[in-house]
Amino acid sequence: MSILKETIAAIAPLDNDAARASDDHLNSLTKPVGSLGYLEDCVRRYAAIRHDGSARMGRGAIAVFVADHGVAAEGVSAYPQAVTAEMLRNIASGGAAISVLARRFGYALKVIDVGVKVDTSATLLDGVTYRRVGAGTANLAQTPAMTADETTRALEVGIEVARDLARDGATLIGIGEMGIASSTSAAAILSAITHIAPTAMVGRGTGLDDAGMRHKTEVVVRALERHRGALDSGESMLAALGGFEIAAMAGVCLAGAAANVPVVVDGFIATAAAAIAEKIRPGLFDHLFFSHRSAEGGHALALEFFKVRPILDLGLRLGEGTGAALAMNVIESALDLFHNMATFASAGVTGKLR
Amino acid sequence: MSILKETIAAIAPLDNDAARASDDHLNSLTKPVGSLGYLEDCVRRYAAIRHDGSARMGRGAIAVFVADHGVAAEGVSAYPQAVTAEMLRNIASGGAAISVLARRFGYALKVIDVGVKVDTSATLLDGVTYRRVGAGTANLAQTPAMTADETTRALEVGIEVARDLARDGATLIGIGEMGIASSTSAAAILSAITHIAPTAMVGRGTGLDDAGMRHKTEVVVRALERHRGALDSGESMLAALGGFEIAAMAGVCLAGAAANVPVVVDGFIATAAAAIAEKIRPGLFDHLFFSHRSAEGGHALALEFFKVRPILDLGLRLGEGTGAALAMNVIESALDLFHNMATFASAGVTGKLR
Repeated sequence: MSILKETIAAIAPLDNDAARASDDHLNSLTKPVGSLGYLEDCVRRYAAIRHDGSARMGRGAIAVFVADHGVAAEGVSAYPQAVTAEMLRNIASGGAAISVLARRFGYALKVIDVGVKVDTSATLLDGVTYRRVGAGTANLAQTPAMTADETTRALEVGIEVARDLARDGATLIGIGEMGIASSTSAAAILSAITHIAPTAMVGRGTGLDDAGMRHKTEVVVRALERHRGALDSGESMLAALGGFEIAAMAGVCLAGAAANVPVVVDGFIATAAAAIAEKIRPGLFDHLFFSHRSAEGGHALALEFFKVRPILDLGLRLGEGTGAALAMNVIESALDLFHNMATFASAGVTGKLR
Repeated sequence: MSILKETIAAIAPLDNDAARASDDHLNSLTKPVGSLGYLEDCVRRYAAIRHDGSARMGRGAIAVFVADHGVAAEGVSAYPQAVTAEMLRNIASGGAAISVLARRFGYALKVIDVGVKVDTSATLLDGVTYRRVGAGTANLAQTPAMTADETTRALEVGIEVARDLARDGATLIGIGEMGIASSTSAAAILSAITHIAPTAMVGRGTGLDDAGMRHKTEVVVRALERHRGALDSGESMLAALGGFEIAAMAGVCLAGAAANVPVVVDGFIATAAAAIAEKIRPGLFDHLFFSHRSAEGGHALALEFFKVRPILDLGLRLGEGTGAALAMNVIESALDLFHNMATFASAGVTGKLR
């Protein structure tokens, strides 16, 4: 059995007994029933995904996948492609936004080169894990972004990263990415899956002007036409519209579910990966947390389409897993309350009148 | 000059130069311009309120004011009045939700008895600051909740608490409260100020059933009629509709602004306090952060009316400053990014193409 098939086969249904057990404890805490709102939902879902009614907390980890996109050649980004490798170094060396947040919250930060165009593996940048599938994808405007073999390998990179993190004690994994032109690939995928028009789905990415937006939208429209025949299955769609890092993040979503570890999805591009994972294995969304409503393109529309509730709504559109890190801290705050609040009995607080 | 007048006189306009200086630095960081969304707004506002373009971070502190409401006699709460004193002890001894969050985030937690019915000051509960204005307010359904003198003293308690916290190095102060029947007082105040009808403003508090809600709404409607002549000024409205803790929180809002310390407003009841402070000193809202959109009553409508943007939307309705603590952590995350991200120059990252 392939690693992917094996992973999918290992995904168990949510544990509703664990959710109920955690709910019983929530209702014993010194607060009006339900008054912690969505934080209580977070605890119940965490318990159900973990198959653990006591919702024990382990470590938080963030996996940032960095890769280049051939479609950058179409001029769809406001930044040059060289920035991908520069940001790979910046993330690993502690200067990027996600580096600051991972440090702040005490999360293990795993930075994976899954296919940056500039190959830095000879010099082995400190803190980078090299799992290069290629030197960037092909140009999805002209050909499939990835071969079937590359698609499988990129998915497997994500599966292995998630397995490693779970084995090392992570009980919450955030996924994020960096890669110039990634939002073109993600917009194409999200349009293909939701049937929301590219005009509503494509965003400004790192800061395109109006002309750039029109051009980027045309590129996505043409790509969806070109690859029309390949949009049936999650894997063929992934191969056509690409993203080594998108495939890897989809792999993390699947392997996280298989390991009973909730995966916290970052913004626009990570949502495209989660949507691919859901297409590969329907029902997978139940095992994920969606961290925030991004300001990028049609992210809000996509979340509505998927009927998922984001934890935060801060107008972020940076990627790298920044929204995931902030939302993980909210989930962990909920778990902290669950574990460390007094009960009505222990604190000697009188209960409800009626 | 009274302490209140002196405080109001000390409030300086926001420092727009500081906001611009912080914005210049934000734009030098390794991220697309504006991509941290509302986090960037938080940094600019913090800098403007602090009159400090480098947005230096000090300590965070939470002030929780606990008091009883005479209107509890009308049967407007699902919990008995004894719970106020029990929760005073629980908050101070570390078992309440706010105790857990303050510990988690490293915030100084100041718990002030500003007028709990049960007087525990003879036994001096560990961790409680006693600044009792009375043994609970009078019943606002029948008389003014507070005398003019009590109103002044409760405002001054808040002013002094904020001054103490600022002097001890707090650069961000969260305000929260606990007190059975407080949401009746707050709903009356918010209805009076916004002219949003009590039917839309009154909420279930700690968990009223439908009959309880109808009764609570009638109590608010009658109180607003009874005190119609007293709703012109912030102070007379405060005296009529009460809340020692609401007055104290209004005092913190005013004194925070006077000390250039941003105050982070919790939910429904703290918003009523902030609204009183804004009525006393128009423009004060600019010096505050609104932490979250509460699930209680018409809080969302009130925030819309005031045209203020909450940082979080988690369906919380617990009070105690829990939403404020979570939002303070978001503001501090924004400041952490501001201070610790690399710049394009320092990280050698290429800038925007066009």
